[in-house]
Amino acid sequence: MDVRKRILTEATNLFFQYGIRNITMDDIAEKLGISKRTIYETFKDKNELLINCFEEYSKERYKVNEEIIKNSQNVLAAICSFIQSGAVAINLLNPAFFSDLKKYHNEIWVMASKQQNEKNYNLAYRLLRKGINEGIFRKDINLDIVVKIILEQMKLLVDNEVFSTDKYSRSEVFKNMVINFIRGIATNKGIELIDSFES
Amino acid sequence: MDVRKRILTEATNLFFQYGIRNITMDDIAEKLGISKRTIYETFKDKNELLINCFEEYSKERYKVNEEIIKNSQNVLAAICSFIQSGAVAINLLNPAFFSDLKKYHNEIWVMASKQQNEKNYNLAYRLLRKGINEGIFRKDINLDIVVKIILEQMKLLVDNEVFSTDKYSRSEVFKNMVINFIRGIATNKGIELIDSFES
Repeated sequence: MDVRKRILTEATNLFFQYGIRNITMDDIAEKLGISKRTIYETFKDKNELLINCFEEYSKERYKVNEEIIKNSQNVLAAICSFIQSGAVAINLLNPAFFSDLKKYHNEIWVMASKQQNEKNYNLAYRLLRKGINEGIFRKDINLDIVVKIILEQMKLLVDNEVFSTDKYSRSEVFKNMVINFIRGIATNKGIELIDSFES
Repeated sequence: MDVRKRILTEATNLFFQYGIRNITMDDIAEKLGISKRTIYETFKDKNELLINCFEEYSKERYKVNEEIIKNSQNVLAAICSFIQSGAVAINLLNPAFFSDLKKYHNEIWVMASKQQNEKNYNLAYRLLRKGINEGIFRKDINLDIVVKIILEQMKLLVDNEVFSTDKYSRSEVFKNMVINFIRGIATNKGIELIDSFES
């Protein structure tokens, strides 16, 4: 792996694990056993490093997503895999990461959320279209609206004001929100498949 | 109808129709053919009048809701009636009503939304419980979570940032959001009933 890629991978891991403010360029250099100067030769400052971390992470996610779609037997299996890999990613993420991002690097936060929203929209749209072709989702749903609803539900899933983490388990909220909604857009064949997954 | 009730009914109609800021105590008096002094003898100021309008409206809604529940053949018919009466109410409402309320009478807005949320929660909870007893909704749903999701969907339905009114018809969003979600929590018997309603 070249130095640039190594810096990005390690920096992303450290930011995810400890938040952004807690991690200095020194920490990253030390962890990689390289000099701080080497990092600054590649990235002007922490802001530029962060932007590149997002780009790199986004490319990696895209590859993983394509693999999931390619290797899943049907769209429901693919959705389950996305959910599992999403849950793993969220569990590894220090909540300080997003709060630091919003507070100290707001421009990056705004840009990254916009890009992520678009990517999530496209991914969800593709999955639903694939599900319709597979006879799992109903043909008469309005794809654009349903995708937007699903994206809003994803936000609601991490909204502590509506579902506080001390009172509601995420998996219970998830089951009652996303699985019920997916059942709702499913054909009879789809519902049978969902029930066989759940049991 | 006594004077107090007449003032409240007329004031509520005028506020709903033209917004709050546009309507003066003079307008209300004129419309009722009474003197402004008569209004001030009953309500200290516009704020007090507004609070009482909300209380009265809320009582009236409660009576209507009870009638709907009593007269509906099953829970789905009741839900349809609520939706219809809700749609009629929203169509009659000038958007200025809520924006004036938030801007110029924020305390009342905060109090009224809190009370309304509680009432909507209780109503939705009752309807879902009734639906489970009637074999229309699945027994394994988490009632508390599902009710909260439905209330959030109601907010999303009037959220112009997510679904702008110039691009999305409310009925299309509604169909894809609420009806799909209700299908999702329904038993097979429930789904058959929903499909017979829709067609």
